[in-house]
Amino acid sequence: MISNNKRPRSKDLGLDMGILPKGKLNSITDVPGVKVGHSTIIEGDGELNIGKGPVRTGVTAILPHDKNIYENNVTAAAHVINGYGKTVGIPQIKELGRIESPILLTSTLSTWKVTNYLIDYLSEKNPGVRSFNPVVGECNDGFLNDIVGRHINKSHVINAIDHASENEFSEGVVGAGVGMTGFGWKGGIGTSSRLIKTQYDSDTSSKGEFTIGCLTLTNTGDARDLRFDGIPIGRHILPPGYEDEENPSNWIGGDPIKGTFQKDSKEPPGSIMIVIATDAPLSSRQLNRLAKRVGMGLGLAGGIASHSSGDFVIAFSNSEYNKIESGDDKYKVNQLSDDNLSNLFRGVVESTNEAIINSILRAETVKGINGNTRHAIPIDKVMAVLEQSRATKNKDK
Amino acid sequence: MISNNKRPRSKDLGLDMGILPKGKLNSITDVPGVKVGHSTIIEGDGELNIGKGPVRTGVTAILPHDKNIYENNVTAAAHVINGYGKTVGIPQIKELGRIESPILLTSTLSTWKVTNYLIDYLSEKNPGVRSFNPVVGECNDGFLNDIVGRHINKSHVINAIDHASENEFSEGVVGAGVGMTGFGWKGGIGTSSRLIKTQYDSDTSSKGEFTIGCLTLTNTGDARDLRFDGIPIGRHILPPGYEDEENPSNWIGGDPIKGTFQKDSKEPPGSIMIVIATDAPLSSRQLNRLAKRVGMGLGLAGGIASHSSGDFVIAFSNSEYNKIESGDDKYKVNQLSDDNLSNLFRGVVESTNEAIINSILRAETVKGINGNTRHAIPIDKVMAVLEQSRATKNKDK
Amino acid sequence: MISNNKRPRSKDLGLDMGILPKGKLNSITDVPGVKVGHSTIIEGDGELNIGKGPVRTGVTAILPHDKNIYENNVTAAAHVINGYGKTVGIPQIKELGRIESPILLTSTLSTWKVTNYLIDYLSEKNPGVRSFNPVVGECNDGFLNDIVGRHINKSHVINAIDHASENEFSEGVVGAGVGMTGFGWKGGIGTSSRLIKTQYDSDTSSKGEFTIGCLTLTNTGDARDLRFDGIPIGRHILPPGYEDEENPSNWIGGDPIKGTFQKDSKEPPGSIMIVIATDAPLSSRQLNRLAKRVGMGLGLAGGIASHSSGDFVIAFSNSEYNKIESGDDKYKVNQLSDDNLSNLFRGVVESTNEAIINSILRAETVKGINGNTRHAIPIDKVMAVLEQSRATKNKDK
Amino acid sequence: MISNNKRPRSKDLGLDMGILPKGKLNSITDVPGVKVGHSTIIEGDGELNIGKGPVRTGVTAILPHDKNIYENNVTAAAHVINGYGKTVGIPQIKELGRIESPILLTSTLSTWKVTNYLIDYLSEKNPGVRSFNPVVGECNDGFLNDIVGRHINKSHVINAIDHASENEFSEGVVGAGVGMTGFGWKGGIGTSSRLIKTQYDSDTSSKGEFTIGCLTLTNTGDARDLRFDGIPIGRHILPPGYEDEENPSNWIGGDPIKGTFQKDSKEPPGSIMIVIATDAPLSSRQLNRLAKRVGMGLGLAGGIASHSSGDFVIAFSNSEYNKIESGDDKYKVNQLSDDNLSNLFRGVVESTNEAIINSILRAETVKGINGNTRHAIPIDKVMAVLEQSRATKNKDK
Repeated sequence: MISNNKRPRSKDLGLDMGILPKGKLNSITDVPGVKVGHSTIIEGDGELNIGKGPVRTGVTAILPHDKNIYENNVTAAAHVINGYGKTVGIPQIKELGRIESPILLTSTLSTWKVTNYLIDYLSEKNPGVRSFNPVVGECNDGFLNDIVGRHINKSHVINAIDHASENEFSEGVVGAGVGMTGFGWKGGIGTSSRLIKTQYDSDTSSKGEFTIGCLTLTNTGDARDLRFDGIPIGRHILPPGYEDEENPSNWIGGDPIKGTFQKDSKEPPGSIMIVIATDAPLSSRQLNRLAKRVGMGLGLAGGIASHSSGDFVIAFSNSEYNKIESGDDKYKVNQLSDDNLSNLFRGVVESTNEAIINSILRAETVKGINGNTRHAIPIDKVMAVLEQSRATKNKDK
Repeated sequence: MISNNKRPRSKDLGLDMGILPKGKLNSITDVPGVKVGHSTIIEGDGELNIGKGPVRTGVTAILPHDKNIYENNVTAAAHVINGYGKTVGIPQIKELGRIESPILLTSTLSTWKVTNYLIDYLSEKNPGVRSFNPVVGECNDGFLNDIVGRHINKSHVINAIDHASENEFSEGVVGAGVGMTGFGWKGGIGTSSRLIKTQYDSDTSSKGEFTIGCLTLTNTGDARDLRFDGIPIGRHILPPGYEDEENPSNWIGGDPIKGTFQKDSKEPPGSIMIVIATDAPLSSRQLNRLAKRVGMGLGLAGGIASHSSGDFVIAFSNSEYNKIESGDDKYKVNQLSDDNLSNLFRGVVESTNEAIINSILRAETVKGINGNTRHAIPIDKVMAVLEQSRATKNKDK
Repeated sequence: MISNNKRPRSKDLGLDMGILPKGKLNSITDVPGVKVGHSTIIEGDGELNIGKGPVRTGVTAILPHDKNIYENNVTAAAHVINGYGKTVGIPQIKELGRIESPILLTSTLSTWKVTNYLIDYLSEKNPGVRSFNPVVGECNDGFLNDIVGRHINKSHVINAIDHASENEFSEGVVGAGVGMTGFGWKGGIGTSSRLIKTQYDSDTSSKGEFTIGCLTLTNTGDARDLRFDGIPIGRHILPPGYEDEENPSNWIGGDPIKGTFQKDSKEPPGSIMIVIATDAPLSSRQLNRLAKRVGMGLGLAGGIASHSSGDFVIAFSNSEYNKIESGDDKYKVNQLSDDNLSNLFRGVVESTNEAIINSILRAETVKGINGNTRHAIPIDKVMAVLEQSRATKNKDK
Repeated sequence: MISNNKRPRSKDLGLDMGILPKGKLNSITDVPGVKVGHSTIIEGDGELNIGKGPVRTGVTAILPHDKNIYENNVTAAAHVINGYGKTVGIPQIKELGRIESPILLTSTLSTWKVTNYLIDYLSEKNPGVRSFNPVVGECNDGFLNDIVGRHINKSHVINAIDHASENEFSEGVVGAGVGMTGFGWKGGIGTSSRLIKTQYDSDTSSKGEFTIGCLTLTNTGDARDLRFDGIPIGRHILPPGYEDEENPSNWIGGDPIKGTFQKDSKEPPGSIMIVIATDAPLSSRQLNRLAKRVGMGLGLAGGIASHSSGDFVIAFSNSEYNKIESGDDKYKVNQLSDDNLSNLFRGVVESTNEAIINSILRAETVKGINGNTRHAIPIDKVMAVLEQSRATKNKDK
């Protein structure tokens, strides 16, 4: 297995990535109760032999809390930035505003196989139940992985769920991120978090301090557009293959200046899955407002949500495990007022931006099918560009 | 009247603001046929006396072409980033995918008075017609203007439409922009454009080269978040009133670190109206895809679409004035394939970002009701921060 | 003024119109606190002289409760069945899930003039406030009324609001309904209500019994499709002008059998505005689910939401006047669980269907501009068809 | 296998079900090129033994044309009436307005297993392609079927696709309909069609005559609400179990009059999948307008879209197999003007209503797991109620 722990995160490069304070791990698992687990599948090398490999894929599981999620479903929302994707479970999240399943991320063509294993898991945990709404997101790892071969099996799915933890986890080439590409570089899994106090903490209640966590599966973007805390890195550093400036055939969507089309138009240029978690007591309508701000964080990283990029957001709050309380308060649910949302929005924008950058910074080079290679972004060159741009630091830090 | 022609645009500061080429005027009027006109209303000084003034407001008109727009309606789409706003005409644009009215922008509480004058205009031009779908957007200029007094009259509306032109127009403190605030500084009207060639220009047809134009009415944002071509200017330069770092009471939505709420919670923190124009032959569905990318351009400028910011996008294509052609081709309409959209998306992101920055750079200081003042962003200080960040330049330019 | 009290309601014809019990008045005002008021404007006769008349129009006001609605806004939702219409206020209701204004209904081209008067009203009641989200719906009364003349003035608007009452009110030719057409017959205002008990009333709490009320402004439909409690009346009774069966030129959208188009294609075939009120404690998401069921009630009456029919639904719950409660429960809001919604959905379907039928049954013949006439549906002929169809009665009543 | 050919369709009972002419077969396959195929799976009897049976389930395939659908995708739209369901493929249909896969219908918990087999099918037909958007709808057959056992295998899926035909097909207990329940009675598959001429056929072109076809998988509704051509059958005929009027515990959503909840609240009360096909040249936006009218046809049958009923509509036009034409006309696509849509809307409403009624009339009694039984609606009793209601006939037929 690839170890990526030695590569830096954005913070290690001195990037503030916004103005809000970060959580302890700067991770989605800073939201109390949220757990993340991965199954990483790397097998074989050389020519593509469909059904045999090489395999560069995986599964990532996000658990909103550690109870039975079907019995203790959580308030949720879904937002589609660009619907060129296959995420399972969106319509029911939109209708009911609840998630009742672990959230899984995986490879595009394995989406439904993985979902069927998730039904196994849910059925076994909840005997007698005859309907579930599984939630499974995906990006396309077909550049590096035998995607048509669908090499994920039931044990990979169960393993990702069962080994999910609240601790720090690897970013980049891990779980569903193994075969993904971020802004022309190796991408994959990234995470970040922000802390927000609302007006209601004037009394001694601890309820006024909330965490926003973000996890991305980054498989989107054009290297020319990439920005680190806004600095247009992509105008200065491009991956191998982009650098023939006389023939910039790698433009996603074709070269807009010459009007020529991309060399291999069958290459899906990518997608991004973003999961937003919070412990703030919010309604589904309010979580939807948060989910809509993800696009701004994606824009800050240089994203344009290109035509064939399936960009989906799932947001949940685990502030309460059961919506309707028992006893005398049976008609009562928790909820912040909308006046408090602006800083939660800022937390979504900042943590999305940072999670995307972390997913690229942390990813090591991977060689996959037919020798196809996605390169890790070179840290030394990044540092050289950033040295020209010290304006990114917060003034008072 | 305030002249703002001496203040620089983003290009004058050496900011590339993306990688696509800009149009000749770098303006929404680079889209052939599109015209823009303004009525600027500045009257009185001193204490607010509702119905008397002081007045700091106006009307801006965008015309998709110079024919009768009711008879020659254009393909259109609308997208709501944050619906805390009153824009008139959105549901019908969404249903029919057409705009049949000049697009007007104005002050929030004058929206419906202005719309009623627009009905006068449309009725006079189209006798016998008994239904129109007027399109009027708004932002709240109540910090500087006697907004409840609603000082716009019919001649202002007709003047903005009748004097609309394809030439260069003023930005900043002009038309609907007179009383607006951008990221804590004086804001208002800004514009920009991008040029895109699609794959279909391989033959000699000129149809393969298209323009994306953007016009914003900027009244949104927090000074701390502001970015110029990604550079976080707002971490270094703040307007008067923000600078007491021990008591940052100006945070929109309250101070997220201390958990205290904003000083004057009745102050509407703003809104942004964005109009996207193109001559590319697109369906309403495709224009809606373009409109959704505006949020990414707003994110690049530092926007978070705060709770009470009404952020609306209207997009139109004037590539054809009549959808169904006459004669043998009566069932035919023009349309690019979706494969060509990615670079149009990039054009939307870049031109939105640049139009917002232009709306702030170009705006001079305005003093309004009760001596309330919005300050022009100081160009020298901006230049000093940018000097630290020369990484924003495109490598090969 | 026209008195319509002698014409029957659907109940008077022995139509059960569903299986749920009806409220005391079988009216939207059965929802505790809801008030309705009308200004009816009927002036002049003869040839249309734009700006002079004849006038056949009005305003209808629905108040969610009798407190200051801006200070005590209510949970709400909006749903667009067919967006060929100009209803004011929809995007903000969708974003925030709240209504902070009286709901007004009026004539299409007077929409914005009426809205501006509503701003007068709201500003006067709420000094110092600089932003409101007025809610004004409309249908097109141009067949009978000098619609371009826009004859509604401020006193009509204020009168409709100030004289709103919880008592029984006239249906048919009253308020905004004066100039409207329902399924080819004279239409206008109609109302109905249903009572629903939920599982939570097993204890002695009275909270488990709720009312659904519906008010429609009916200006939609083709006479051939009309159904009374499902019975296809329109296959047997047609208004004058429809009856030339060799030349059925009145088909909305053209004759689908001969493929010929309607005689006067400039005639807007109508619209319908539906307001749903309830005292059940529901979130905006839940109210949106209710609002979506209105289309089924419209379908039961024979509606097809034709191309140019602007069909809008506004739903609100007045179960709480302040969203966030004071004191220790500041984070608590009331809400039923979704499991209880099915019968509320049935109440929406049934009361919508009945309100539409009442709006037609109760409307007397009106002659308007240029002698244009909309005929009251003949009760004796209706009775004759219904006599053939006694199957509409509930079995056990 | 159950033969259901002896039971009548609505037309056989003398019900006109609207005013438009019907197609030759009164079936979705009246739309030229559309094919339908079924795999019906009925195995075992007695007690439920999960994974063993009894099995009462199947797959139904709808093919838009007989070419490779991935290479020749069709214009499409999706509309969610009530999102309590798991239909696969909705977000991408909404984004791109295209369907590139056979449309399959099946049992809820088999949805993703069936989708994975569909990926097998699509991959084999389209080697080298690494992304597909499969479209699979579902209803819950868990009352009769071992739903958790997921007994559908690859051969069932391939068989339904490969044996699809343009001929007449069985309704009721066939394909995905085997285990479904319609308004308390045995339900399943139903179909209907309507013919519409538009104004454009004034010349000799045959393009002005179009067909609307509807296929439903009916698993929704409460027996009390059922209507046949509007006649409230459900007030007179109820299935076994409903008839204890002192204890109407079968109310979906609980008894609204007594306020008691349904006996077995874990019983999913159902869902409905509706597929609308046409050969009219329509854009995705226009097809979405058609799809929204399905709710009115459902309302006419007595549907209320109860809380846990997942009600999804998929609509497509096969008027062109390739969107962008080759040659000189490369920018041209076919499209009717919106003025022509009203009669297509009427066709959707009427054919949806009739397809639902056919799905119930044609379904024979089925006994499934644990002896659970859904009864065929008794034709003689239906006839008796209809005899009282001869008003349903069209006057001039």
